[in-house]
This record gives sequence, structure tokens and C-alpha cells, in this order.
Amino acid sequence: MSTAEETDGENTPWSEVTPEAARRLLVAAVEAFAERGYHATTTRDIAGRAGMSPAALYIHYKTKEELLHRISRIGHDRALRLLETAADSGGTPSDRLADAVRSFVRWHAERHTTARVVQYELEALGDGHRAEIAALRRKSDAAVRRIISEGVRAGEFDVPDVPGTTLAVLSLCIDVARWFNAQGSRTPEEVGTLYADLVLRMVGAQK
Amino acid sequence: MSTAEETDGENTPWSEVTPEAARRLLVAAVEAFAERGYHATTTRDIAGRAGMSPAALYIHYKTKEELLHRISRIGHDRALRLLETAADSGGTPSDRLADAVRSFVRWHAERHTTARVVQYELEALGDGHRAEIAALRRKSDAAVRRIISEGVRAGEFDVPDVPGTTLAVLSLCIDVARWFNAQGSRTPEEVGTLYADLVLRMVGAQK
Repeated sequence: MSTAEETDGENTPWSEVTPEAARRLLVAAVEAFAERGYHATTTRDIAGRAGMSPAALYIHYKTKEELLHRISRIGHDRALRLLETAADSGGTPSDRLADAVRSFVRWHAERHTTARVVQYELEALGDGHRAEIAALRRKSDAAVRRIISEGVRAGEFDVPDVPGTTLAVLSLCIDVARWFNAQGSRTPEEVGTLYADLVLRMVGAQK
Repeated sequence: MSTAEETDGENTPWSEVTPEAARRLLVAAVEAFAERGYHATTTRDIAGRAGMSPAALYIHYKTKEELLHRISRIGHDRALRLLETAADSGGTPSDRLADAVRSFVRWHAERHTTARVVQYELEALGDGHRAEIAALRRKSDAAVRRIISEGVRAGEFDVPDVPGTTLAVLSLCIDVARWFNAQGSRTPEEVGTLYADLVLRMVGAQK
């Protein structure tokens, strides 16, 4: 699995992780978890991929779960920021919903390896960490639900089931991480544009 | 993870697997792969879960990959059958698309543990098996694309990007396996009905 995606995107991924050795270990952990799964990966594997000793890893992360939590936290913070930025922006509900979908899809496409770890290994988090991440996920859901509700109130959207439609919109975008292939025929940008149109249809947006 | 789902549904799951010991091992493999991932699971773990010895497992399955392939093959055959049945039925394109979505969603909800293994462990298949499964997936895609194309030709649907919309429809349904919770507030039937409505909106179906 390539790490090319890790250097794509608007911001340098993992730039919030310092020092550099801690960042290198985190990138190695993402690759290892994505390739073999969390439970099949040892801290020794991760240290080896990062060209470091298990003892050097231990300086930065006490456990494998701490690495997973750090990855999950950064990924969920980023996703929430994208959705809240779109929800808080000045346009119409249609503009804001299209914006939210485009940026959320692009993140799941560009960072698909990270996103798979973030989305599929939630069960492996410790109880406290899982509760913390669940709270962030509820906030992401609330940001999208808010845009849809405002569109309904403004008479711009026609949505019989707002919570169900919110769930479906987020689910559609998240699953991009599963199928997206950097060698495929569509760019992250193109998938984002297609999906924004499909989601506006789902909410019955007035053209 | 509960195995209650394994006894739900219209047909008895895995009834095509005989003798009973081979079926018991397959069910144990699904549970183990779903809980810990394919790579973290040993044939010894699977035999133990099924209350059998590793030697008894070896009578039925030569390798762990053979178990995964059997699970994946049965799951993909079932999914394809559901979609082709809907595509070949007599109704309008809207009726057939709604039917395809309802039955595909219900399968991913009712059998979510199996579906996660089927959808997330494709990379772990051997090359020949992966090619065989990829061919089944292309047929599933073709069944849905056929319904959508016929709807467009009949003037019943308005779809600017048929392959992209087909991909999105299947993706939306598949991701149900990730988030569906048997203890949650929606039944598989309810999710199927909601999603059929959302998909008809995605294709701009005339009411």
C-alpha cells in the first residue's frame, strides 16, 4: 500500500504530531493497521516499519491502543472540522450541504488508508477512548443534520426523515474510503462533485 | 458479537455448506474474522470456537484462505442473486430499482457480521480467488446499471452519470453493514424502505 496519499491534501497530514519520530511511528502504524488489521499488528512491527527499536517506540507511545487512539482522534477532529466549517459558512443550505459533502468525500478519498483505520477499528479502542470518539461522531452527525433541518425549514429541501437521511449522507461519503482507488478513473475532486449532486437530489433540493 | 443474525432471514444461512461440521467451522470463522480480523485469526482459533480440533478442521478446509474464500463466494453469490432477481422482475425501472435496494440493504443489515467479512477482507484472498470474486462484483454492478440505464431510456430516470450513480447506489447499501446495529432503532426492513426512497431520488425518478 502506497503512502503517497499521506503527502496529498491541503495540509501536511499529521503535522500536529511532534516530534518527528512520533509522527514517523504514527504513519507506520496507519500503514500496518490498514494492511494487516489492528489485532494482527504488534508494536514491534510498527517500530520496525519506522526504522526504530521497540524501546524507542515506547518513549512516545505506551501501548498500541494509544497509537490507534491518536490516529482516530486526529482523523475524527479533522472530519468534524470540515463538516462544521461547511455548516457555519454563509451560503444557502444547498451551498452548505454541497460543500460539506465535497470536502468530506475528498478527505475520505485522498486519505483512504487513514480513513479505513479510523472507520473500521473503532471496536479496538479502549472504553474511555471509544466514548470520546463516539462524542465526536455525534457532533459530525449534528453538523450535517443542522444543515438539512435548516433547508427543510427554509422550504428549500423536502426530507421526510431528517435523522435517517443524515445517516445515509454520512454513510455514502464514508464508504468512499472502502472503494476509492488512487489508480482508478475518478479523482477525489470528481467524486466529491458527483456526490454533492446526488446528495442534493436525496434532500429534494429546489434547483 | 452475537450470532443471532446468523439464524435470521428468509433462508437458513450457510445451508449450502455440508456436512454440519464444515458449516459449524464456517460460522466460527465468520465470527473470528469479524472480531479480530483475518490476519489475527488462526485455524486453531477457528477450530476452538467450533469445539473441534485443528486436525478436524483440516479435513474440511486445507487453509485459512479456503475458509475466507468459501465465505466470500457464498456471500457474493447471494448478493448477486438478489440484485439479478430484482433486475429481471417484471415491474417498471422504479419498481425494480426499489426492489434491488430493499433486498440488498436487508441482506447487509440482517447479515452485517458476515457482510463485513465479505466486504472488508477482499485483499486477503489469494490472487485466483480475488479475480473470481471481482468478476461476481462486476456482475452485481452490471445488474444495477442495467436497471438504471433502462429507466433513463424509458424517460423515467434523469441520470447524468450512470456508472457513477450505480457505484454510489451500491456503496450506500454496502455501508449499511458497517453501521447497522441490531439493537438500534431501525429494523432492516425500515432501513430498506428509507434507502429505496433515497435511491429513487438519486436517479430523479418521476413520481
